[in-house]
Amino acid sequence: MDPRRALEYAHRHRGQFVSGLKEFLRFPSVSSQPERTGQVAQCAKWLAHHLKSVGLDRVCIIPTDGNPIVYASWQRAANRPTLIIYGHYDVLPGEPLKEWRTPPFTPTLLNDNLHARGASDDKGQLFSHVKALESYLKTTNTLPVNVKCIFEGEEEIGSPHLTSFIAKNKRALRADAAVISDTRMLAPDRPAISYAQRGGLRAELHVKGPPHDLHSGNFGGAVHNPLQALCEMIARLHDANGRVAIPGFYDDVRRWDEKERAFMMRTGPTDEQILRDAKVKRGWGESGFSLYERTTIRPALTVNGMAGGHQGPGAKSIIPTRALVKLSFRLVPDQDPRRVARLFREHIARITPPTVRSSVRVFSPIEPALVDRNHPAVRAAALAYQQGFGAPPVFIRSGGSIPVVNTFQKILKIPAVLMGFGLPEDHIHGPNENLHLPNFYNAIATSIWYLAIAAKLGSAHRVGKQTALAVSR
Amino acid sequence: MDPRRALEYAHRHRGQFVSGLKEFLRFPSVSSQPERTGQVAQCAKWLAHHLKSVGLDRVCIIPTDGNPIVYASWQRAANRPTLIIYGHYDVLPGEPLKEWRTPPFTPTLLNDNLHARGASDDKGQLFSHVKALESYLKTTNTLPVNVKCIFEGEEEIGSPHLTSFIAKNKRALRADAAVISDTRMLAPDRPAISYAQRGGLRAELHVKGPPHDLHSGNFGGAVHNPLQALCEMIARLHDANGRVAIPGFYDDVRRWDEKERAFMMRTGPTDEQILRDAKVKRGWGESGFSLYERTTIRPALTVNGMAGGHQGPGAKSIIPTRALVKLSFRLVPDQDPRRVARLFREHIARITPPTVRSSVRVFSPIEPALVDRNHPAVRAAALAYQQGFGAPPVFIRSGGSIPVVNTFQKILKIPAVLMGFGLPEDHIHGPNENLHLPNFYNAIATSIWYLAIAAKLGSAHRVGKQTALAVSR
Repeated sequence: MDPRRALEYAHRHRGQFVSGLKEFLRFPSVSSQPERTGQVAQCAKWLAHHLKSVGLDRVCIIPTDGNPIVYASWQRAANRPTLIIYGHYDVLPGEPLKEWRTPPFTPTLLNDNLHARGASDDKGQLFSHVKALESYLKTTNTLPVNVKCIFEGEEEIGSPHLTSFIAKNKRALRADAAVISDTRMLAPDRPAISYAQRGGLRAELHVKGPPHDLHSGNFGGAVHNPLQALCEMIARLHDANGRVAIPGFYDDVRRWDEKERAFMMRTGPTDEQILRDAKVKRGWGESGFSLYERTTIRPALTVNGMAGGHQGPGAKSIIPTRALVKLSFRLVPDQDPRRVARLFREHIARITPPTVRSSVRVFSPIEPALVDRNHPAVRAAALAYQQGFGAPPVFIRSGGSIPVVNTFQKILKIPAVLMGFGLPEDHIHGPNENLHLPNFYNAIATSIWYLAIAAKLGSAHRVGKQTALAVSR
Repeated sequence: MDPRRALEYAHRHRGQFVSGLKEFLRFPSVSSQPERTGQVAQCAKWLAHHLKSVGLDRVCIIPTDGNPIVYASWQRAANRPTLIIYGHYDVLPGEPLKEWRTPPFTPTLLNDNLHARGASDDKGQLFSHVKALESYLKTTNTLPVNVKCIFEGEEEIGSPHLTSFIAKNKRALRADAAVISDTRMLAPDRPAISYAQRGGLRAELHVKGPPHDLHSGNFGGAVHNPLQALCEMIARLHDANGRVAIPGFYDDVRRWDEKERAFMMRTGPTDEQILRDAKVKRGWGESGFSLYERTTIRPALTVNGMAGGHQGPGAKSIIPTRALVKLSFRLVPDQDPRRVARLFREHIARITPPTVRSSVRVFSPIEPALVDRNHPAVRAAALAYQQGFGAPPVFIRSGGSIPVVNTFQKILKIPAVLMGFGLPEDHIHGPNENLHLPNFYNAIATSIWYLAIAAKLGSAHRVGKQTALAVSR
């Protein structure tokens, strides 16, 4: 199917596309803040309405025990393959607000960059595909392939209800490949397809000392301070060489052969590029590995936040009653998040001094994922990038975690094609997140091309009667 | 002078005294929160008005570059000694509010305990003396001694303007002794006079990493985490034996002979008592010293608060840009807070890893203080306790810091008599601070007796014309 008319439509409607995206970005659809639940639901409603207006056949909001899944499909291309398009409309919190140049939920164009929480991760990327579908449907009233869009509202909290939704709807969700756009390119002219994702595990560690704050004059020197104890425990989570110091943690870490490491060296970013992206002068971490390797084929443990005692202005002479740290692991093949959780608990029990008490909670286990970079659906994506960005993509590993990659591979037995459109300088997860608009336009073109090229892939399925969707509860 | 009528008056007016104290406690006179400055000033105004109503001759609110000093005097007892009565009307913040059984600035009587921030530290103790003065003035229209009350509003932030006020008013503040009630007894039936105070120094340590929060998936394992780095640095502030690990820190710590240590063992609280007061099961700290010694003749370094990264509900996958810790030192003779500040800075510079940047700010240096427990003004206090509480006081060392003790001794050359009326279970500096009312009544009686007994002390000064007070700016 010739994508020309769709491409022309997309070009002509750039202004409208950006306006639509701005509307989408205005919703503070923050999944990690329970008080935002209503706003997440409103965002889902807006998205469903928008998908209907684009011309998709069947649009529904599927309730879960958490935030709803927005589902949309178009299945009229008999004997053509079926693609799942996955994205997430939930975002991280905007905090710390005062570090933003513009308010996170007031999308603002600064030069060619659209600033807003979610602009790149993932509303902007999700929207690229929606605009590609629109470009076909508004010009030709048809699509080159069948599509099933799954846009979830809980990716940033570990997709707790997505797996059961997919497992319960294996038949309804039959497809030939899943396209996921929630990763990064290397630069605006260097597209990339991710073929590996790290897994993950989140943890909270609480340390309790005296039952209430104590005066540090009266008791300082005689009562162990839970904040100090927590710091001392955190200091024992890494050794002096930047390695995670939890016994057994590296047991299942896969060793890659020289061929794969040479491939990574050739295709991946250099240490200098990673440091430039991070805007830091020096790298850190496990010796014997490049920074790219440290963030992809090696696991990591990060302190995401910590709180305890007096944090306001001025001083308060106390030994605080408790302290809390939030941590996250990034895991690699063949680590099992559940085993890591157990090792972590055991290590914490071992290093908790007898003068305080500790407790551990773990959340959101995500298994690491690998994609066969030679799968036809992945090769098709490479061709699409060549058209959309004028350059072939490099195959890279990602350091982040997208829970659904594994879910698609394991439950639906289809490859996940990680067509990322983000840029290193998008500031995702931090203040001043933004989307580089030229990338957005090229992403739409790439998606248009991908739909056209994917039409030539073989299909294992006959597109038949639509199957009713089971709710994920 | 016979204190009988004053004692009777005090007994009869207990209800009114508690009502007056409740009014005083209603002011959130928090000196460490700049937004409370207006409320601190209102509290000063109320106190000045109250002192006038009690019958003191000369009452004024003395402005400083910070919070005002409330001054009141009565100098009609020719040829009698002059006492300075010192207290502070400022308080610590009420936070964390949700841990209070009753709101911190809504004084509430639970059983025999008046709950409010400042109930014990120090409004309640200050008020005991005010009520003793009232009991004399309302019954006999005279006092046994001359008094000069100095009630400051900045004790909890290290009394930054008090020293210059006293230095500028050496002549106007001439006296024979200074009474300070801002310390603790051992139990309701075990009064105590403190003869030693630890000095102090506050510090803030900032650690900066990347210029903005980074995605922990993309960079975790390759960029040093400032929170982790800060924890690792804090872990290097103490050794495994609970000693402060800053080189040179113990150089000037005075060694006490066996006689003094035996006296301390006899008079001070046991380890068990201290653990019971703290409500913890195990002690901590420098081996070779009792818990009482660790909190009095040994210095300490306490982590008062720490913040960095994501602290809200849920999770945020970031490497935070920075982290902050608030610390306080407690120092002992013959440590110099300025030297400690230098050693701390040097140590931090030494242990800051090259992958992050650190900065140190120090505040509120306070020198340690010792009082001669055989001074006649101190012995007079012992007699007064015997009358007011029915038991002789023990002489104990305090772990806290009262900046003015040194100021009185060094600038005015007078002993500071540390007549504490607080109790270990008053929860000062923490949630649910309260004043045990029977102690309040006995404190008033003790103050009444002290004024009577102190009348017999010799005086080095002729009470003459009042000297104008210079403002401390």
